[in-house]
Amino acid sequence: MLTFFYAPKTCALAAHVALEEAGADYEARRVDFASAEQTKPSYLAINPKGRVPALVTDRGALTETPAILAYIAQTHPAAGLAPLDDPFAFAQMQAFASYLCSTAHVAHAHGRRGSRWADDPAAHEAMRRKVPETMAACFDLIERTMFRGPWVMGERYTVADPYLFTIATWLEGDGVDPSAFPRVLDHRRRMAERPAVERALAMEGA
Amino acid sequence: MLTFFYAPKTCALAAHVALEEAGADYEARRVDFASAEQTKPSYLAINPKGRVPALVTDRGALTETPAILAYIAQTHPAAGLAPLDDPFAFAQMQAFASYLCSTAHVAHAHGRRGSRWADDPAAHEAMRRKVPETMAACFDLIERTMFRGPWVMGERYTVADPYLFTIATWLEGDGVDPSAFPRVLDHRRRMAERPAVERALAMEGA
Repeated sequence: MLTFFYAPKTCALAAHVALEEAGADYEARRVDFASAEQTKPSYLAINPKGRVPALVTDRGALTETPAILAYIAQTHPAAGLAPLDDPFAFAQMQAFASYLCSTAHVAHAHGRRGSRWADDPAAHEAMRRKVPETMAACFDLIERTMFRGPWVMGERYTVADPYLFTIATWLEGDGVDPSAFPRVLDHRRRMAERPAVERALAMEGA
Repeated sequence: MLTFFYAPKTCALAAHVALEEAGADYEARRVDFASAEQTKPSYLAINPKGRVPALVTDRGALTETPAILAYIAQTHPAAGLAPLDDPFAFAQMQAFASYLCSTAHVAHAHGRRGSRWADDPAAHEAMRRKVPETMAACFDLIERTMFRGPWVMGERYTVADPYLFTIATWLEGDGVDPSAFPRVLDHRRRMAERPAVERALAMEGA
């Protein structure tokens, strides 16, 4: 039995969808960001980083979306959510996840979490102003060079798909017109129709 | 035969050390950052991101340090550089790599690469000022909650070790006194004595 800690409208949606796709036996627990529950000792005992997602297993907690996604795929091989027997294809999938985590998500975070990287409110405003440009640059690279179609990795649906879907839903809020990225936009539409995505979003109350 | 694209004093050192630890058959090629070679069409044809590292295999190029490290470990199983048969332990190792990539490296990058996230020079200066605090916070979390000892993952040396070593060598340059993190500092000293680390650093001319 797994316990999945998430908050709505965060990157935790990627792993939440993956759990649904995998048919995993898990319980979802919402972390209340409004009361800063993620900074309280009870949650820090689970995840000292004070972030979501966290996936608690019978051997302990896992954090970081790319690691959690690979873990879900590896522990539910029947769901076929990753090229587990092909190190090169697996690495390509992980590289995609790593790019979303360390570049696209980071670009997005400069819109509302600038206080992580500077104390000056004017610097936060300068960061906010650049988010439409940096997010568009990330998705231009994804659209042109990384996304294969019909799924991220090509013919095979993998855990990279819910991760792209999750971050692609942030585009309008980041001031980016998604119509500039027709392949990503088409992917987002098809993802939204998947029962696993509908279930995860319903559970998150979104 | 692999071709490994790197630049000295970058995070590429982690994968470079891993290739040496694995006894991989590879050729190292330096990308000349001084002449902005990473932005030229010839290099962008290899890695459209315009960054290092990139590992070119007979099936194509791989990017992103966490993905490359796992690939090296998976394709050189005799070297024992990752818990390949234990999805939970593998995910813990990948979570550590993901944290270095998306949080510690990103914190460091705000010291010299602020133009990625804002256009205002005053904002770049505000980011630079906070780097000692953010890097210290990352290493405090690593020292207290993530590093097991004697290696990152415990008794077993893995590809997470050269990654931690690489980023830990940036501490002084980021205005952080590493003596505040005695376990990380001891790890850094032991890493520097490994023949694979000495070889990679010698090849990079460092």
